[in-house]
Amino acid sequence: MSQQARIGVIGLAVMGSNLARNLARHGHPVALYNRSVAKTKSLVADHGDEGTFVPAETPEEFVASLERPRRMVIMVKAGGPTDAVIEQFAALLEPGDVIIDGGNAHFADTRRREAALRERGLHFVGVGISGGEEGALNGPSIMPGGSAEAYASLAPMLTDIAAQVDGDACVAHIGPDGAGHFVKMVHNGIEYADMQLIAEAYDLLRHAAGLTPAQIAEVFRGWNQGRLSSYLVEITTEVLSHVDADTGKPFVDVVQDQAEQKGTGRWTVQVALDLGVPVSGIAEATFARSLSGDATVRAAARGLAGPQHTESAGKGAEGIVEDIEQALYASKIVAYAQGFQQIRAGGEEYGWPIDLGAVAAIWRGGCIIRAEFLDRIRAAFDTEPTLPTLLSSPHFAEALAGAQDGWRRVIASATARGIPVPGFGAALSYYDSIRANQLPANLIQGQRDYFGAHTYRRTDRDGVYHTRWGQDRGEYRDS
Amino acid sequence: MSQQARIGVIGLAVMGSNLARNLARHGHPVALYNRSVAKTKSLVADHGDEGTFVPAETPEEFVASLERPRRMVIMVKAGGPTDAVIEQFAALLEPGDVIIDGGNAHFADTRRREAALRERGLHFVGVGISGGEEGALNGPSIMPGGSAEAYASLAPMLTDIAAQVDGDACVAHIGPDGAGHFVKMVHNGIEYADMQLIAEAYDLLRHAAGLTPAQIAEVFRGWNQGRLSSYLVEITTEVLSHVDADTGKPFVDVVQDQAEQKGTGRWTVQVALDLGVPVSGIAEATFARSLSGDATVRAAARGLAGPQHTESAGKGAEGIVEDIEQALYASKIVAYAQGFQQIRAGGEEYGWPIDLGAVAAIWRGGCIIRAEFLDRIRAAFDTEPTLPTLLSSPHFAEALAGAQDGWRRVIASATARGIPVPGFGAALSYYDSIRANQLPANLIQGQRDYFGAHTYRRTDRDGVYHTRWGQDRGEYRDS
Repeated sequence: MSQQARIGVIGLAVMGSNLARNLARHGHPVALYNRSVAKTKSLVADHGDEGTFVPAETPEEFVASLERPRRMVIMVKAGGPTDAVIEQFAALLEPGDVIIDGGNAHFADTRRREAALRERGLHFVGVGISGGEEGALNGPSIMPGGSAEAYASLAPMLTDIAAQVDGDACVAHIGPDGAGHFVKMVHNGIEYADMQLIAEAYDLLRHAAGLTPAQIAEVFRGWNQGRLSSYLVEITTEVLSHVDADTGKPFVDVVQDQAEQKGTGRWTVQVALDLGVPVSGIAEATFARSLSGDATVRAAARGLAGPQHTESAGKGAEGIVEDIEQALYASKIVAYAQGFQQIRAGGEEYGWPIDLGAVAAIWRGGCIIRAEFLDRIRAAFDTEPTLPTLLSSPHFAEALAGAQDGWRRVIASATARGIPVPGFGAALSYYDSIRANQLPANLIQGQRDYFGAHTYRRTDRDGVYHTRWGQDRGEYRDS
Repeated sequence: MSQQARIGVIGLAVMGSNLARNLARHGHPVALYNRSVAKTKSLVADHGDEGTFVPAETPEEFVASLERPRRMVIMVKAGGPTDAVIEQFAALLEPGDVIIDGGNAHFADTRRREAALRERGLHFVGVGISGGEEGALNGPSIMPGGSAEAYASLAPMLTDIAAQVDGDACVAHIGPDGAGHFVKMVHNGIEYADMQLIAEAYDLLRHAAGLTPAQIAEVFRGWNQGRLSSYLVEITTEVLSHVDADTGKPFVDVVQDQAEQKGTGRWTVQVALDLGVPVSGIAEATFARSLSGDATVRAAARGLAGPQHTESAGKGAEGIVEDIEQALYASKIVAYAQGFQQIRAGGEEYGWPIDLGAVAAIWRGGCIIRAEFLDRIRAAFDTEPTLPTLLSSPHFAEALAGAQDGWRRVIASATARGIPVPGFGAALSYYDSIRANQLPANLIQGQRDYFGAHTYRRTDRDGVYHTRWGQDRGEYRDS
């Protein structure tokens, strides 16, 4: 067994196995290690003909089989298991070797690990990988952090295995230390928002437009030919057109309406709050999942009163469907704008020079939120890298101007009918807030000054002021 | 100087001084310590006639002046300064002594400190104190955590200095360790939501109903006579009726519309996300403040298109005003319901047996969110302590049923006019979501199963299922 491998994979559950196979298929000899050797053996037995695999039964054997600098991708559970595996293997490495974490780590953990391993002369590269099992095998979207030096040593392999769109590989060096996992986190947050918006569109098509799941599938199929063209819209068509074999009912009608989550939406919102970035679309999507799963509250609230007078639809079903498409597209633009805002703020906070256009570009393929309109987002940031918000780029500003009448009608109609639209509504409120000449935050500043002497700024001159509310109501300058 | 003090206060900035004076005025001799002795001296010089103060120049002198068990309230900045002062004084104490943190600590810090000091035989009581400077002096709302034993030793003093409502002191033992600071955090989160809702009502009264700040002040004055009666509505009247002496303009018109924040709203939402509790009202309020302060984005977005056709108001100004009152009241009920939900979830997570009715009761006086309708909330939880949601209690269910038509009209009107209503809208979406027979979360579960094999539950039988989407679309039972 003197075969040297170019890279190794540790942890051969489905994601790890598929990534190893993807590497091998592209001509990169891959060392394999798994805690239980059975998985290693079955991977080689089942897929050994796809490329060169170098199985190892011990960490020492695994490390010995790697070219220098050694490169190894850890694909184990985030958290404690990742720390344990890093510790186990780092002890066997030499300065200049590269440990890659391809799991769903929190970027703060990645920053901590990178700093600790850098002290020991090792490179640590946190890589966000999106696309699920199928993407790992056939081409994911890859978001690597870590040092430029480490990235240079990985780039040829990552470029080979990534999804390809219009001749470009969906991989780019995001920035130092935790930048890759940060961007992957926001990707997942946007995914939450996008799914919630699609769910609201479905709910409206069903309960406002009165369509069946099969008819709604056809609506989404049509939308997938236009500006909404995306993986999530495509699979929505598949899910809605699927019929349950057991009952003959539409599949969605036999699925419980309690959504689950694995935590990355929550992380995204928590981090956004620390950064002071309003990601209301992701927050509402995360809350909507929690709420849907709270059977106790829902059971208690089911009897609450709905609207007294259901609005008589002024437009036929076709008009409503068009309006819903406008609402979905506009809300989706807002959700992505908020996500990109968070990426920029994260970059500023942590000193990562993130190229937002490149992020949009590598999301065009392989990942769950791949969508045609990411081309437009890329173009917007490529044209104006310091664009303060995606919404003000000429293309999207025009799209929003065109969509807003329908968007507003949909929300008004849902409101009148008692159909919840937390995502559509939050998106429109964001749009109307950022374009407002005057927000009522002046009243909030007045209240804060009244009860807490928190001071305020004036519109007509510099300085920080306080009014002596409890005394003579005179104003004095605080600083 | 052999005078013994019943309790001591460390840190004599405004909050600490006022709390010390409040204690002294109620006949409790108070030891005083401040890092710079000048503040101690000026407190005694200015207010020495209000009661018995025992000033100390050193920590040792301060500790020696206290009755046993020694009781001392720390009123310094949250975070590092609090840790430093705790360490400094704990070293001088004996088992059974009580350290009280009256600052705005994060409850997780309070849990950590309580556990560490318990190991050393000391009681640590994190106390949420609401009411600002004025409340600290004349009667705040007091939310103590810590052990029952420590509370028993403090209760007589806390009862004396707390706000009094209908003969009840606004203080109750919330629960062990960090329970008091947790409830204070949620109090502040609700305060954010309440202020945002009032701000939206003001915005609508101004830009949809066309009223002037002076007229709006009168509307709020009237509302303060009814079910909206509360401190925040009362001070809104004061702020809106105030005229800037310099310019003769309404005060709010010279105040910049960029709201600031100190972090407790953010904490509340972050913790709610960990607990899986949808606090969309608090989240939108926190986001609205951040958004208002982002001058760059707002400047870039100011030119975005507004509604093409402004809805012709079908009702006169009076009708709109009534509708806005309905929307404000209904949204406020939702915000408080979400906050109480978070308190219950926190209690379950951390093992605190929190009495929600008692929490509502002690918020009726002294604190920023004191409001008449907290009597109703107390009654709802006293009648049914396991009430799954405040919204389903008979009183509030009826109020919501009566308010919802106006609430829906307000949101529809704001939507058509381009006036942002993130708080009102999120509240209504929450209401319509929890009462829904069917949420579109079934589609989300289908999507998740499609792209990530995340499985789903069926409506017609137990078990966890996966459909082989990429293959024959057969369903198998996963567990």
